[in-house]
Amino acid sequence: MDIAELRTRNPDHWMRATAIRALALDAVAAANSGHSGMPIGMADVATVLWSKHLKFDAANPGWYDRDRFILSAGHGSMLIYALLYLSGDKQITLDEVKNFRQWGARTAGHPENFLADAIETTTGPLGQGISNSVGFAMAEEMLRGRFGKKIIDHHTYVIAGDGCLMEGVSQEALGLAGRYELGHLIVFWDNNDITIDGKVSLSDRTDQVARFKASGWHVQEIDGHDPEAIDAAIVAAKAETGKPSMIACKTHIALGHAAQDTSKGHGALTNAEQNEAAKAAWGWTNGAFDIPAEIKSWWEEAGSRGAAEREAREARLAETSESRQKEIHRVFAGEAPKKLSAVIKALKKQISETKPKVATRKASEMALEVINPIMPETVGGSADLTGSNNTLTGDMGTFDVDNRKGRYVYWGIREHGMAAAMNGMGLHGGLRPYGGTFMAFTDYARPAMRLAALMKTPTVFVMTHDSIGPGEDGPTHQPVEHVAISRATPNTLVFRPADAVETAEAWEIALKQTATPSVMSLTRQNLPTVRTEHKNANLTEKGAYVLAEAEGKRQAILMATGSEVEIALAARDLLQAEGIGTRVVSMPCWALFEQQEESYRRRVLPPAGPVRVAVEAGVRFGWDRWLCGERGNAKKAGFVGMEGFGASAPAEVLYEKFGITAEAVAAKVKELL
Amino acid sequence: MDIAELRTRNPDHWMRATAIRALALDAVAAANSGHSGMPIGMADVATVLWSKHLKFDAANPGWYDRDRFILSAGHGSMLIYALLYLSGDKQITLDEVKNFRQWGARTAGHPENFLADAIETTTGPLGQGISNSVGFAMAEEMLRGRFGKKIIDHHTYVIAGDGCLMEGVSQEALGLAGRYELGHLIVFWDNNDITIDGKVSLSDRTDQVARFKASGWHVQEIDGHDPEAIDAAIVAAKAETGKPSMIACKTHIALGHAAQDTSKGHGALTNAEQNEAAKAAWGWTNGAFDIPAEIKSWWEEAGSRGAAEREAREARLAETSESRQKEIHRVFAGEAPKKLSAVIKALKKQISETKPKVATRKASEMALEVINPIMPETVGGSADLTGSNNTLTGDMGTFDVDNRKGRYVYWGIREHGMAAAMNGMGLHGGLRPYGGTFMAFTDYARPAMRLAALMKTPTVFVMTHDSIGPGEDGPTHQPVEHVAISRATPNTLVFRPADAVETAEAWEIALKQTATPSVMSLTRQNLPTVRTEHKNANLTEKGAYVLAEAEGKRQAILMATGSEVEIALAARDLLQAEGIGTRVVSMPCWALFEQQEESYRRRVLPPAGPVRVAVEAGVRFGWDRWLCGERGNAKKAGFVGMEGFGASAPAEVLYEKFGITAEAVAAKVKELL
Repeated sequence: MDIAELRTRNPDHWMRATAIRALALDAVAAANSGHSGMPIGMADVATVLWSKHLKFDAANPGWYDRDRFILSAGHGSMLIYALLYLSGDKQITLDEVKNFRQWGARTAGHPENFLADAIETTTGPLGQGISNSVGFAMAEEMLRGRFGKKIIDHHTYVIAGDGCLMEGVSQEALGLAGRYELGHLIVFWDNNDITIDGKVSLSDRTDQVARFKASGWHVQEIDGHDPEAIDAAIVAAKAETGKPSMIACKTHIALGHAAQDTSKGHGALTNAEQNEAAKAAWGWTNGAFDIPAEIKSWWEEAGSRGAAEREAREARLAETSESRQKEIHRVFAGEAPKKLSAVIKALKKQISETKPKVATRKASEMALEVINPIMPETVGGSADLTGSNNTLTGDMGTFDVDNRKGRYVYWGIREHGMAAAMNGMGLHGGLRPYGGTFMAFTDYARPAMRLAALMKTPTVFVMTHDSIGPGEDGPTHQPVEHVAISRATPNTLVFRPADAVETAEAWEIALKQTATPSVMSLTRQNLPTVRTEHKNANLTEKGAYVLAEAEGKRQAILMATGSEVEIALAARDLLQAEGIGTRVVSMPCWALFEQQEESYRRRVLPPAGPVRVAVEAGVRFGWDRWLCGERGNAKKAGFVGMEGFGASAPAEVLYEKFGITAEAVAAKVKELL
Repeated sequence: MDIAELRTRNPDHWMRATAIRALALDAVAAANSGHSGMPIGMADVATVLWSKHLKFDAANPGWYDRDRFILSAGHGSMLIYALLYLSGDKQITLDEVKNFRQWGARTAGHPENFLADAIETTTGPLGQGISNSVGFAMAEEMLRGRFGKKIIDHHTYVIAGDGCLMEGVSQEALGLAGRYELGHLIVFWDNNDITIDGKVSLSDRTDQVARFKASGWHVQEIDGHDPEAIDAAIVAAKAETGKPSMIACKTHIALGHAAQDTSKGHGALTNAEQNEAAKAAWGWTNGAFDIPAEIKSWWEEAGSRGAAEREAREARLAETSESRQKEIHRVFAGEAPKKLSAVIKALKKQISETKPKVATRKASEMALEVINPIMPETVGGSADLTGSNNTLTGDMGTFDVDNRKGRYVYWGIREHGMAAAMNGMGLHGGLRPYGGTFMAFTDYARPAMRLAALMKTPTVFVMTHDSIGPGEDGPTHQPVEHVAISRATPNTLVFRPADAVETAEAWEIALKQTATPSVMSLTRQNLPTVRTEHKNANLTEKGAYVLAEAEGKRQAILMATGSEVEIALAARDLLQAEGIGTRVVSMPCWALFEQQEESYRRRVLPPAGPVRVAVEAGVRFGWDRWLCGERGNAKKAGFVGMEGFGASAPAEVLYEKFGITAEAVAAKVKELL
């Protein structure tokens, strides 16, 4: 690449873009870690996008109708930090840039959405950003459908690298974006031919242009260092409103550096001499972190370019009815409607009275039937298991090209893409997504489920067919360890409700969250109503509670969740019949129980004394916290559950064969007494 | 579809294929669960493949050079059970078919590789089979490269549905197969336009033919009910040896049944009247499970068709040198060489003497440097992190189109595809795959890691950059819950070695497994050698052991793994200096410790008495098993570790800020005393 030619072809553009390059080089060198080459290679694309197209207002980075910018290649985080600092963002200051990758800085190694308002999503795990972006773009279509294009009308821009495109989840994202004709989604592919291990061709020879076209995308190929070509391509991509756009940008990683076009250029360029030589080649004569005033003020002007449009659009919003304004503010704030508690209480009352014997997946549908009509911001869906996950309610309508108001998404067999897109919807704001698959397939969605927790976005994962309940489908479909996996994940509420009342309560809690995702672990098989006495209070909010008290002297405490609460209650009957006073504790959400004050926890699980036996049709892993910890006594603790994978047979046979029965629980208690 | 025309076009073929259809219909109806439509739709393809092309010998289903048949669309399991029963397989008898999906039957809801020799791999979780098949086909190329085509020369055939192709992992598989020009891999796409939620077009409009071509595949499109077209396509696919082949088979799900071409046809067809009508339409007049003798004998002939070739090839093998024959038998049996223990002992001795301060990822490389030369069956690789995972040793050579003997695979940024393909390699036999990525990205590989455990294949997952050690890369790259996740998974050995000695021991154990996968959780940062006194015995085999005994009265036991063992030892020094006798227990593998006799466990963790404090730079989840369970005392138990996600800063700063220090451990002990 002839740097001299690039410098002279458009010298103003060159120096503005090179301000990004210099900051990236300086920050990575100062941190002695990070990724220099990508920001250097994509500086031209970013400069044209941010200065000519991206609708943003650096003074108000969070306004609702901004364009969304997603750095899917998150390791190139200095690109977004440089852009933000240069544009005048209030949070990403020069001090922050200088503290790149240090404790307490907003400029984390990978962009973290919770550290700066202008960072839309956390990226770094490859393929996530581009998959989130499908959710962002769907959200824009849905909200434009709902509120009209005078209120909502913006684009989602993505920078993705080869890593993002090689990750399988990218195919799920491509398929979704193509199928749903997300015309406001524009992806720049940083086509630099380099991965960490070497040339891309070392491990991949996919024709990406043909691949995107096969999924229904509009594709252009350009020189990623030519500002006019970049501009023209963005104009053309915006003009194509019926298809998502991919712009393949041929770039040179670490352009102008000794490491240009090599794997070394991907990482931290810390050789001072080479870095100085690169700056010299770029024609950059300033010191470290020093941006010439005229370049900084040009960038700040670019950063305020969107202010007028923001004001105009906000003024237009102010002209709409007060109730509509309130509604828009409410949904973007993620506030549940006040009516939510009332409808849940009414449903609980009805359930306690009618005592239906239903699967909790069906109970979940019953809850959604009362929730969805009063929460127009919910978006439901399933990864091709709608009838099994019970995620569709009557009033939603199907999201489609000709029905952007539709609130139900047929995600196809794409658990991971669904989860990542749901995260994107939630991060966009204005919507509250939930989506379903089988609990065993949390495995597929897991990378995005973890990110929901890390990003503090309250996505609801509706995971049905839990435990060994899937019966005949066999061990691949029996999630014996998946409840434990979700429980082990920080900032995640895992609900395993015992009946329709607890399921309704779980939904109420999940929909009131603003910073925590929820996993609903639901049964395929029918369960009796165990909460037969109506209480207004949401008992699931405590995480665990006494469902049935011991009669006579309390000698045993049985702990259970979900489908095994029924077994615990039956075991209690057996034990009480023998005069063994037995309490049953239902524990629908461990994380909430942990958050209770110690005094409450001790009331539910009194220290020492009684035998404690837990029953759950999954692995014991994690249960010792409640059995022996929490002032329990290891000598008086037992577990009835699974010791390994399940098997294929009718569910009731499996419960017998694996010994998860009331008799086994009672026997375990007696053995320990 | 005109069934009458199909029946008359090739009546012999029709009835042979319809034997599959009838068995599928009968078995699913008897079980009242399962999937009828797919076997009915793909019966023609399967009949042509099995009777004319598939190299197999029903009497010897496991012989090493058989063609491999993989039913990626595993829900259609009755297809493979019908094929096996009809062909005369000894394990899948008519009784087994009649017991479809029942307790103890080999005919599980989804095909399980451990229930019948002829079932190559467990399928059901979509996309896995097609991704395994890449490993099968790579294994064939590698072994053909090593042993010559007189010994190894076979095909891998796959039946995949829309679900498999929509799963993201399929793109990883496509890219790998195309890049490595796996010419002996032939995939049939059951192109029936139907998913559970409706028409495929409801959620996907990908041009699959164009997509496969974009990844370098040879593609044909045929009528999947035309036996001559099927035959011709297989001939053409076999003739194309430089590319993997995809044959898009246009089929009708539940052909001839009232549910034909509908979502209902995907599931269990149990309406007796409709089933009878379907049989009538097929011209099938036999009773349930009743196969006319001439059809059965034709199928049995097909099943013995490969016997002669097997014998001929086995005779050819018998002509090779005895050492070569022994070697082939050894690698296909998955036996580690006798020398393994000796080289590991020598390495351990050298480490104990030289006491290197190295990261365990580097220690893993040191072990591999002595292992790979004596185990030519190992296949290494990394998902684009070769230099970080330290998975490449000097002697391996790169697997490539022009070097099939190469033993190192550049998997690209495809953690999930890598893991699934490694499983395929292991299941093929003759190879022992290991592959690396960051521990945090076990999330991506998780569906295949679980299947390794379920399928009892001893894949080794080399997961580096564990705990909060990735430092500046921040929380996305810090696997605080992933050790717990792997530990929660049945039949999985999770090793978190403390130094280079334990790492070498872990490798020895992992490579001796024949039915259990291993996860190596390794550090990025350097660790001192803590096993400074050489012992021949493999202490890691015990799972946990006393690394440093208390001096004076034992008042405290510190438990730690991996990088935190160093901290525990330093805490012991602090405590001993104050006269508090402190034992340090290193726990590199919980699962192995659990397998020890109680007497050993009690010696390591004596009941009650001393304070127990565990230290691990991850979540506490699971630790109460050792802290309070195992006859511990909840009042005297403490944990020093992470309470949530990590952050971006240098690793040593994170340890300080999150309070994972020797001082904190010592303080916790004193607080509990």
